[in-house]
Amino acid sequence: MAETATTRRSRITPEREAELYEAVLDLLREVGYDSVTMDAVAARTRSSKATLYRQWGGKAELVARAIRHHKPVGLLNVDTGTLRGDLQALTARQDDCEMEQNSSLMQALSTVVHSNPELLAALREWLIEPEVAEMRQVVQRAVDRGEVRADNPAIDYVMHMIIGAFVARGMIDDQPPTQAFVSSYIDAVVLPALVA
Amino acid sequence: MAETATTRRSRITPEREAELYEAVLDLLREVGYDSVTMDAVAARTRSSKATLYRQWGGKAELVARAIRHHKPVGLLNVDTGTLRGDLQALTARQDDCEMEQNSSLMQALSTVVHSNPELLAALREWLIEPEVAEMRQVVQRAVDRGEVRADNPAIDYVMHMIIGAFVARGMIDDQPPTQAFVSSYIDAVVLPALVA
Repeated sequence: MAETATTRRSRITPEREAELYEAVLDLLREVGYDSVTMDAVAARTRSSKATLYRQWGGKAELVARAIRHHKPVGLLNVDTGTLRGDLQALTARQDDCEMEQNSSLMQALSTVVHSNPELLAALREWLIEPEVAEMRQVVQRAVDRGEVRADNPAIDYVMHMIIGAFVARGMIDDQPPTQAFVSSYIDAVVLPALVA
Repeated sequence: MAETATTRRSRITPEREAELYEAVLDLLREVGYDSVTMDAVAARTRSSKATLYRQWGGKAELVARAIRHHKPVGLLNVDTGTLRGDLQALTARQDDCEMEQNSSLMQALSTVVHSNPELLAALREWLIEPEVAEMRQVVQRAVDRGEVRADNPAIDYVMHMIIGAFVARGMIDDQPPTQAFVSSYIDAVVLPALVA
């Protein structure tokens, strides 16, 4: 993209941006990705479509960034001084109800992604890659503290383990992920693989 | 279900059954789950619809069992004498091309599952639960050999780790799973968590 997010974003206030993202998430939950239109977002938020396109390029980016914005606390804001503390802080970012809501939202989007490469690209750019990068920093701090060996091959798979747990929870156990499940999975799988 | 699979299945030969399953998988790949009809399966395999319904109850079970049948070697047929050997044998069940084919088939089905609880139930009964049970036996043998502690909490998460790797591979790395990836993930994640 030619313009950076910052220059595009600078035209609206952070409060207005947050308001727009909330409206987009409400629409998503109400009607599903395919039925969300820029017209509906514009109407609900009393914005012009021109503004929406100027700021976000299109629906895929707007949706991906709305979800990104909704994540309560980025991993980067957490630095407990231990790998276990930092990873377990993941579980405190959302209560069980929010985890279930976000999990069904992501499940619904994952069905759209197969026929919509633009949405996949936007989710990868605004959600997956930033999470992978933040996780890399969490693990790098653990390497620097001597908790994790720099050449441990599990370092490349931290997000695979975690995303996998969320997805497999529904498939195998027919239950949404909960704080207790994620916490137990981190202690049973992620930490032993990383400190092995 | 009132009748057992065995009594229902006993009316056709294993060769005929295999032929039917191949036809179902071909149709699935050609037109997708929603467009597969019992009429089309009956026409392609020159069976009567009555036979299909009698043997398989319906489309969801027929599809789930066709996929199950297609899996080249069950885990239970593998007993190498070590946990690593048994788990690594997973990677040898399919070559990279088959792995990619099965992975896109499962991805396509996972999008259907959200709006089709009957298919989810059939996949759980015929694919996920048998795999979980087979994996439990692989791990139990490792516990009996003293390779894995009986109270290791990762035992409950082996299928979460493995299914997660397959799903996350596409999301994070934008690549289908390969033998090399699965093999490396088993050594980096699954084994360290289990023998921790």
